[in-house]
Parts: sequence; C-alpha cells; structure tokens
Amino acid sequence: MSPEGPRPGGRSARVQAAVHQAVRGLQAERPRGEITVPRVAARAGVTPSTVYRRWGDLTELLADVAAERLRPDRPPVDAGGLRADLLAYVGGYLEEVSSPTGRAVLRDVVAASSAPELPAGRCDAYVRAQLGIIVERARGRGERVPPVARIVETVMAPITYSVLFASAPLAAADVRRLVDTALAPTVTAAG
Amino acid sequence: MSPEGPRPGGRSARVQAAVHQAVRGLQAERPRGEITVPRVAARAGVTPSTVYRRWGDLTELLADVAAERLRPDRPPVDAGGLRADLLAYVGGYLEEVSSPTGRAVLRDVVAASSAPELPAGRCDAYVRAQLGIIVERARGRGERVPPVARIVETVMAPITYSVLFASAPLAAADVRRLVDTALAPTVTAAG
Repeated sequence: MSPEGPRPGGRSARVQAAVHQAVRGLQAERPRGEITVPRVAARAGVTPSTVYRRWGDLTELLADVAAERLRPDRPPVDAGGLRADLLAYVGGYLEEVSSPTGRAVLRDVVAASSAPELPAGRCDAYVRAQLGIIVERARGRGERVPPVARIVETVMAPITYSVLFASAPLAAADVRRLVDTALAPTVTAAG
Repeated sequence: MSPEGPRPGGRSARVQAAVHQAVRGLQAERPRGEITVPRVAARAGVTPSTVYRRWGDLTELLADVAAERLRPDRPPVDAGGLRADLLAYVGGYLEEVSSPTGRAVLRDVVAASSAPELPAGRCDAYVRAQLGIIVERARGRGERVPPVARIVETVMAPITYSVLFASAPLAAADVRRLVDTALAPTVTAAG
C-alpha cells in the first residue's frame, strides 16, 4: 500500500487512478475471466479490502472503469448543421461501441446494479449531455430541433440495442436512416 | 454426482435442468455476489468441473438461465387487432423487464459474450418471433403491417434501453406512443 498522505481527497483520487489503470492494464493482457480483485489490487499497490470497500465487487469496479471510458473528453464536433453534427456524433458512437472492446465496455457498464450512482445512468447522462450541446448549437443557428429525448429513443436506443442484443450491429446507412427519422416531422411527440 | 445413465442426451438434459434449478434457487435466497459455481454445483449435485465444461464460467451460466427465463411459453395474446396485440405484448414485456428481477435478468443476459450461441441473441430472436406471429396474424386479417425490424427499432429498443440505462424505465403511456409511432406511415423505411 502507498503511504497515507495528509490529504484524504488526494489519496482517494490516487487510489482511484491507480486501480482504474490496473484494470485497464489487466484487460489489455488477460482474458476477462482472469481479472480478479486481488490481481487488480496487487497491480495498483493497494489492498483488496480497499477495492471492496470502495467499489463493492469486481462487477461494480469494471462498470466504473467502463463508464469512465465512455465519458466524452471533448464537446461533439461542429460540422456546421444539426444533421451533420448528429451524423458525426452518432457515427462515432456506433464505431466506439460496436468494436469488440466497445461491446465489452457496454456490457460491463450494464452489468452493475448499484443505485443511485449507476454507471449505466452515467453513460446515458453523457450521451444526453453531448446531444444537448448539439441541439443547443443548432437552436442557436435558428434550426428546428427535436427534443434530446426523441434523439435518444429514435437513434441511440436502436444502436445500443443492436450492439447488445443483435447478431450484427447497425451500419452507417442505418445511422443516416435513424437520424433522418429523428429529424422528420412527427405525429406523436417524444416525452 | 449423479450416476452416469445409458443415454448421454438424457443425462445432459438432467444436468441442465438441475443446474438451472440450482441457480434459480440460489438467486431467490442469496445476494448476487454470493452465487458461485461451486455453490451452484453442490446444490445441483454435480461437480464444479461439469459446470465449467458446459458453461465456461458463472457469467455464461447466469446468462443462459436468464435467457431461458425470457423464453416465451405461449404465443402472444390475440386481442383482435394489430395495435391491441402489440400493446398487450409490449406492455407485458415492459412489465417483465422493468421489475427489479427483470432488470437483473436483462443484465445477466447481456453480460455474457460467447458467440455464436449468445444468450442476448436468443432473447432478440424470441422477441422477433413473437412479433412475427403478431404481424402475420394481422396480415391474415388484411391489416397493413410494418416490418418486424421496424417494431424492434421503434418500440423494443427504447424500452430495453430505458430499463438498462435510464434512471426510470418507460411507462405505459410511452408504450402507447411508441406503438403508434411504429404503426404510423413513415418517410424512411426500416431495414
């Protein structure tokens, strides 16, 4: 274990960083079944009980690391218009989550169940925040915009469902079709 | 271990039934973290290696049991018309997967990754088969029907996404809205 520093917040952040890094390192080297809390702890230089106290169990830890991977590190690309912005963002999301690593990340996120800081809820919030930026930008340009909830339902949900459940994830042509559906005038409004 | 019978298929089916029943029994009695392959094996009267050989690991076993829970045991209710049939089926699906047990079942299904007999793919196939029956029945009545893929995208995907990712699953009013969207004339056709 690393020595106790004078600032608990500082140590807490260091433990978090070391444990996350240890998980990512093990994930790069070993099959999923060989990743255990004692192995993570040893690599991070902390005790297993530190990991259990903070994360509960391996599932919660892997979900926390996975949610962190899905945290956006910059605002969505400004491609000049709502449709182009959505196509760029959604295309990037599909590419990210439909790779073998991306599918594993989504599965890890969903596997955890601890309310209220649900990792899956964090990912949903990241998606809505990025879409919110795109929609606000479009509104600022004077474009007609659908509610973020409608884009989530019409575009993000089918993409995510296809990655998690279907034998093949959706393709780029499907992304265009779904974005156009989200942008089309509607009979029934999304909540 | 139970004695080897003369019919390997018979023994195989008995092992499957005993192991599934042991998992369901443990799930009813213990928190998720306390379910282990040795405990399941002991309760089922088989060796842990039998379980590992057949299912790979605990995640795959739990996914197999979860997919089995989602297997429909009867055709969808005939409520007299396409919209009514869809509302009944989708409402039942939402009720099933939005309970705490149902959410855990969906999470278990999604957590496994072994191709090609992916438990999540089996669940997707169950859903499409039930929707296929509803759509064929409606076609037989002379109703205009959307493709099953469109119903999956427009209705099942948002419901499933809401259960897995959002802080609150969708409600009955959302089900009506989504079904009406799936049945509305479209600009862009689903693949």
